Amino acid sequence: MALIRSVFQDELDSVSQSLVDLTSMVSASMEQATTAILNSDLNLAQEVIAADEKIDDFQHEIDARIIDIIARQQPVASDLRALVTALRMSSDLERMGDLSHHVAKIARLRHPDPAVPTELIQTITSMGSAAVKITNKTGIVITTRDTDMALEVERDDDEIDNLHRQLIGVLIEPTWKHGIETAIDLTLLGRYYERYADHAVSISRRVYFLVTGKFAS
Amino acid sequence: MALIRSVFQDELDSVSQSLVDLTSMVSASMEQATTAILNSDLNLAQEVIAADEKIDDFQHEIDARIIDIIARQQPVASDLRALVTALRMSSDLERMGDLSHHVAKIARLRHPDPAVPTELIQTITSMGSAAVKITNKTGIVITTRDTDMALEVERDDDEIDNLHRQLIGVLIEPTWKHGIETAIDLTLLGRYYERYADHAVSISRRVYFLVTGKFAS
Repeated sequence: MALIRSVFQDELDSVSQSLVDLTSMVSASMEQATTAILNSDLNLAQEVIAADEKIDDFQHEIDARIIDIIARQQPVASDLRALVTALRMSSDLERMGDLSHHVAKIARLRHPDPAVPTELIQTITSMGSAAVKITNKTGIVITTRDTDMALEVERDDDEIDNLHRQLIGVLIEPTWKHGIETAIDLTLLGRYYERYADHAVSISRRVYFLVTGKFAS
Repeated sequence: MALIRSVFQDELDSVSQSLVDLTSMVSASMEQATTAILNSDLNLAQEVIAADEKIDDFQHEIDARIIDIIARQQPVASDLRALVTALRMSSDLERMGDLSHHVAKIARLRHPDPAVPTELIQTITSMGSAAVKITNKTGIVITTRDTDMALEVERDDDEIDNLHRQLIGVLIEPTWKHGIETAIDLTLLGRYYERYADHAVSISRRVYFLVTGKFAS
């Protein structure tokens, strides 16, 4: 029994490590997508778009492993909850990859024109850095199950929400001179970063709940 | 063994019925959100916003039941896959509820002003009807596991994508006279309907995969 238990624990740790690897892939993807959109870098945008398939494949592989562990080990109580939570986290991460992909697609659509006008470069730069920072912390939360850091991720999300409000504020200023099409792009971009960060928060909340049995508030 | 098997089948059917009930709640929510935004109906918008909590609670209840069934019945192979798929479908449905809620929040934010200018009322009306139609079909797909209808849902989604393109087309016309703020609202609205329908497609694809073992293409 002790042996089976230990194999199970190894399998759980290996799933957790894969989720951390997926987190790194997603973080790199958003970092590159942000660089691509700020520099109108078509090649980098294409790379991000192509990498999304790798993220999806890796997610499917992780999910198949989790389902296989449930079928073979028939875990109950907290072990089963940890595995179901892992399925949900992989789904959050896959969606974060989609959102980086959406950012890269706007870069590709507008290339060779810049998608982001000069007065919003700082805001998008900051949204991109905040998104990468929050993803990296989320990876640490998955590894360490550090509940304080899980709450920190929640606070970091407020930073992205503030930047998002700033962005919309610039778009609706009477001095906005870049027209509706650019405003539409920027509205969607803002939404993509915001949703991306929401999924990171959701992962941290899931870890928090797993460890404490309580919802983070 | 036959008895246990039959209890398990009953439990699976009951989960399936709850997912159909959740689908109806989500469909009603999007129908009301669309009416609220078209008629600037603040009370109805508030109702939709309040009902989102009921949708979330019901989803949590369904998920807890699914996890309890996995723990007690320790299903393998196709039974386990069906239950994992049910978890994913409940998560899609919960997100569809969030998106109706977002539509209602735009209605509330702009009230007493209309959020949708006259020339886009027809497009939003059609997006709303298409969203409700696709959700109701999704409910039938969950009940009947009808793979032809699952593919139909996929085609219905093209209708929403077309309407979405029409919407953006109107926003970027040089004759657009409602300013940036309204364009931002309509960009987000279009995105909400599009994502809502994407989740319905995702549910139908999951059923298709469960029945055929193949991805719908």
